[in-house]
Amino acid sequence: MPSYKAPVEDTLFLLYDVLGFDRHANLPGFADASRDVVEAVLLESAKLCEEVLQPVNRSGDVEGCTRSADGSVTTPKGFKAAYDAFADGGWIGLSADPDYGGQGLPHTIAAIVNEYASAANMALAMYPGLTQGAIAALTLHGSDALKQAYLPKMIAGTWTGTMNLTEPHCGTDLGLIKTKAVPNGDGSYRITGTKIFISAGEHDLTENIVHLVLARIEGAPEGTKGISLFVVPKFKLDADGAPGERNAVSCGSLEHKMGIHGNATCVMNYDGATGWLVGEENRGLPAMFTMMNEARLGVGIQGLAQSEVAYQNAVAYAKDRLQGRALSGAKEPAKPADPIIVHPDVRRTLLSIKAFNEAARALILWTSLKGDVGHASEDAKDKQAGDDLMGLLTPVIKGVITDVGFDNTVKAQQMFGGHGYVAEWGMEQFVRDARIAMIYEGANGVQAMDLVGRKLGRDGGRAIMALFKEIDGFIKENGGIRDLKPFLEALKKARDDLQKAATWFMMHAMRKPENAGAGATDFMHLLGLVALGYMWARIAKTALAKQASGEGDAARMEARLTTGRFFIERSLPETATRLAAISAGADAVMALPAEAF
Amino acid sequence: MPSYKAPVEDTLFLLYDVLGFDRHANLPGFADASRDVVEAVLLESAKLCEEVLQPVNRSGDVEGCTRSADGSVTTPKGFKAAYDAFADGGWIGLSADPDYGGQGLPHTIAAIVNEYASAANMALAMYPGLTQGAIAALTLHGSDALKQAYLPKMIAGTWTGTMNLTEPHCGTDLGLIKTKAVPNGDGSYRITGTKIFISAGEHDLTENIVHLVLARIEGAPEGTKGISLFVVPKFKLDADGAPGERNAVSCGSLEHKMGIHGNATCVMNYDGATGWLVGEENRGLPAMFTMMNEARLGVGIQGLAQSEVAYQNAVAYAKDRLQGRALSGAKEPAKPADPIIVHPDVRRTLLSIKAFNEAARALILWTSLKGDVGHASEDAKDKQAGDDLMGLLTPVIKGVITDVGFDNTVKAQQMFGGHGYVAEWGMEQFVRDARIAMIYEGANGVQAMDLVGRKLGRDGGRAIMALFKEIDGFIKENGGIRDLKPFLEALKKARDDLQKAATWFMMHAMRKPENAGAGATDFMHLLGLVALGYMWARIAKTALAKQASGEGDAARMEARLTTGRFFIERSLPETATRLAAISAGADAVMALPAEAF
Repeated sequence: MPSYKAPVEDTLFLLYDVLGFDRHANLPGFADASRDVVEAVLLESAKLCEEVLQPVNRSGDVEGCTRSADGSVTTPKGFKAAYDAFADGGWIGLSADPDYGGQGLPHTIAAIVNEYASAANMALAMYPGLTQGAIAALTLHGSDALKQAYLPKMIAGTWTGTMNLTEPHCGTDLGLIKTKAVPNGDGSYRITGTKIFISAGEHDLTENIVHLVLARIEGAPEGTKGISLFVVPKFKLDADGAPGERNAVSCGSLEHKMGIHGNATCVMNYDGATGWLVGEENRGLPAMFTMMNEARLGVGIQGLAQSEVAYQNAVAYAKDRLQGRALSGAKEPAKPADPIIVHPDVRRTLLSIKAFNEAARALILWTSLKGDVGHASEDAKDKQAGDDLMGLLTPVIKGVITDVGFDNTVKAQQMFGGHGYVAEWGMEQFVRDARIAMIYEGANGVQAMDLVGRKLGRDGGRAIMALFKEIDGFIKENGGIRDLKPFLEALKKARDDLQKAATWFMMHAMRKPENAGAGATDFMHLLGLVALGYMWARIAKTALAKQASGEGDAARMEARLTTGRFFIERSLPETATRLAAISAGADAVMALPAEAF
Repeated sequence: MPSYKAPVEDTLFLLYDVLGFDRHANLPGFADASRDVVEAVLLESAKLCEEVLQPVNRSGDVEGCTRSADGSVTTPKGFKAAYDAFADGGWIGLSADPDYGGQGLPHTIAAIVNEYASAANMALAMYPGLTQGAIAALTLHGSDALKQAYLPKMIAGTWTGTMNLTEPHCGTDLGLIKTKAVPNGDGSYRITGTKIFISAGEHDLTENIVHLVLARIEGAPEGTKGISLFVVPKFKLDADGAPGERNAVSCGSLEHKMGIHGNATCVMNYDGATGWLVGEENRGLPAMFTMMNEARLGVGIQGLAQSEVAYQNAVAYAKDRLQGRALSGAKEPAKPADPIIVHPDVRRTLLSIKAFNEAARALILWTSLKGDVGHASEDAKDKQAGDDLMGLLTPVIKGVITDVGFDNTVKAQQMFGGHGYVAEWGMEQFVRDARIAMIYEGANGVQAMDLVGRKLGRDGGRAIMALFKEIDGFIKENGGIRDLKPFLEALKKARDDLQKAATWFMMHAMRKPENAGAGATDFMHLLGLVALGYMWARIAKTALAKQASGEGDAARMEARLTTGRFFIERSLPETATRLAAISAGADAVMALPAEAF
């Protein structure tokens, strides 16, 4: 049976030693997040994830969710108890508004807890995860009345939230939405239509479910500018704000999915359900994107989480499984064979995952922290810098970390040989669960187009120029640290490849946007590599400083330097291939007639 | 529901126009394979695969195999009828010895039919596929009596075959085998032990099952030199050679697997079962490797097959699904949106699969044909060249084509967005089925070690030098064809990277074998890229010649040139990254202590 141990030591090292979380103690929200508090939060949530969420992960996969004839949905055994423990611990509202019962901590702290929870049990963690997204959208766009009515219950986890975008004929292209909203005359609307792929759309975990639904008000303009956002509760609220009359929304069926079996993915039928407008008429998409951006970061975190838990189990197996002898001679001559972790190809595989995970965790924390600082700061420059970086890196975190995170679950599974293919070992579940993260909240190709088509050129390329400036400043500033040189040189080479790619787009994609489209995915991965390489340079700098001062766990610092070296030697050179692909342009991509595929 | 169309046109183009299959008509076996016969074989097998095997692929996945309390195993509904059609058509013995009822055609033809069958229904095709491996081992190593007793029935498909290597504590490291064989004094042995992961170990398709089993004769030397190969039938043969008394071998349980649910993967218990020695005592491993090499090629073919069927369905979806508009303006303004095949990132994804599939098919046919020619030829040089190339490329075909083939099923699934994650569409089955091919018959890391540790240096590097010579000859010979230049230049660059990598191993891995181990997987993929690049150069040459002469389907030839261009511009440059990883050596890989992972 697989197991999971939350990487608390690594998180704290990154947060404090590398990223200097405590430098922002003067900002609102951060004041309550003293090191003591953060450590306690991490350790407590780690314990909950390891001991309560993880043990029902595989059983939840095997059992799955079931829908009864009346449309009710039962989650797997043990899910309700685990969900209650998570909600009762106050984990859902960790970074939510204290006025509505939240704890007001920086989002960065919530991101950490989400990593642990998703690693322990991705299907289960999605229920509170979606609620957090819905809380964010309502907090920013809901009227005071809506906020009063819904937020306290959602923050407490008494009710969960969902997001309803997709319809049978439209996913990415939300301008095609057909779900209809007709005013009732009393401020409410009758919502009619079918939504598909609704995660946590129906379940037995809570007494109410709060659906956020995109629909078109009768007579609204066509396309994306005619879409509004509504809140549609499963049970309408009575005079006391408690769940009252059943609303006309129901789960028509459950999807049979490749993975995340413990999460109910529903077809939701809205049959004249009563809904209330969130924000302005026809401004539903921007409001939903608040939720979506939060969700995209959350999905990137899922990619890391599955990569981490798969890695941990592969390492345990590689230390335990005896097969063959080390090339340099038997390491455990008393045993019939050596553990397979002696074999270079096994080590290479495991290191490639480890080197990714630690930098990906740093990247998520760094981006999240910049966002928090921007949010909390009074300084307009801080705000802009935070927004810019979040905008630029959200598609990278979503697209790259889920792509590579999935590949890593496959690599970790591979370490088990035939046992990795057998369900009892739990490794193939990580692969199946991780797979969805590349698809939902905008398939990764859509992330790449968002990056290249919108984020890259926005405000004259301000965001990426700021990133270059920061990296160049780091390289310059630390050029004197001898042992950091290999990291800085590799980073310099990678950022040069990135700049060449950006320049190539500037020169070739203005006239012919297909040149950007054909290179978008490669560019997203190229930017991801540079960002991860930058994280490794910063980690290495800190580890070297700790070594020099004799602080911290010496073996851990040495391990970080070795792992970082592996990354810059073996993973980072991929930037050259990505640049070559981008520079090839769109000619061959566009030339083939559709019928010749 | 997914569908499948066997790529007969592409196969014939590669076989005749690119590889000149008919040049070998003077060789035994080839004489019977006139173009008319081959075309008929391909078309007939295509029809069977499309119309009989494919329709029970998804239902077989959903239903899976079931084991009853008495140890009997039931295959999914429709499998027996489909198997019977395959066996009755004579497809199992296509390249088997005519003395035992085979058709004696070149193995290349059987490889083609196996591609089609594996694409249509991988789980089902494994039953005859394993039989073919067992036929090969018995043909080469069995006594006349054993051959007379078993081959005609196996070739006819009346009985199936299995290979029994793995035990709970040993997979790759077969020296650890514990299954015991004790002589009965009458020429037979009592076999006792437990084998796991036995594909097709028990089922209801045929009246008998012929197990080939590795075991250790009492008193045999330890390790790999004390292992013998036995034939153990499920039912012992009576005086007439018909299945008689039940042998003491039974299926203890079925594995719950990620995929290939229609194939019964059994734990097999040998409780003093009666077996007969195949070949010499203690020479079981070399005999089993006959079967294994055949099986490894077969597994590479499965990788291509899943990549091809996933691609075909992704193309169909991309032409049908309307979402968004082309960057250059609406392509189908009358419809609510354009089909997604207008989007550059969708085309790039599909082309990357197509460009791989066509070259992988060429590589399998080329290697197979060299093997056939070597086998059939009287010329010692032909024989050696065929053996060398088969030895060198078998791990590449197994390792690279299953790695990339799996990635391709994931890419194809991605084209469907959320629908790709839903079982009904069938795409996630291709991913789950393709996944096993990276694992069984020697995990791909083991293939890489076989390549780098054994095949590369064998006979002073004769095999790879012959490959370089062939490629260099091709480049030189065709340097005058103007439109072929980009292909030749890209191929030259790639082969130079390969040579640098080989040289790096020569200089650094003699003293420190970990330097080879740490670079083995990258080297396998580097060699794969060069081989595929060489195939594209050959395909392009042929397509250009056809264009010039006005022969063949002009649109198909143009499509080949475009697809090939995509490959050399976008896929082949990866050789640089592979070389960089290899040249980084083993230092960082070996430095981390096991406890620091």
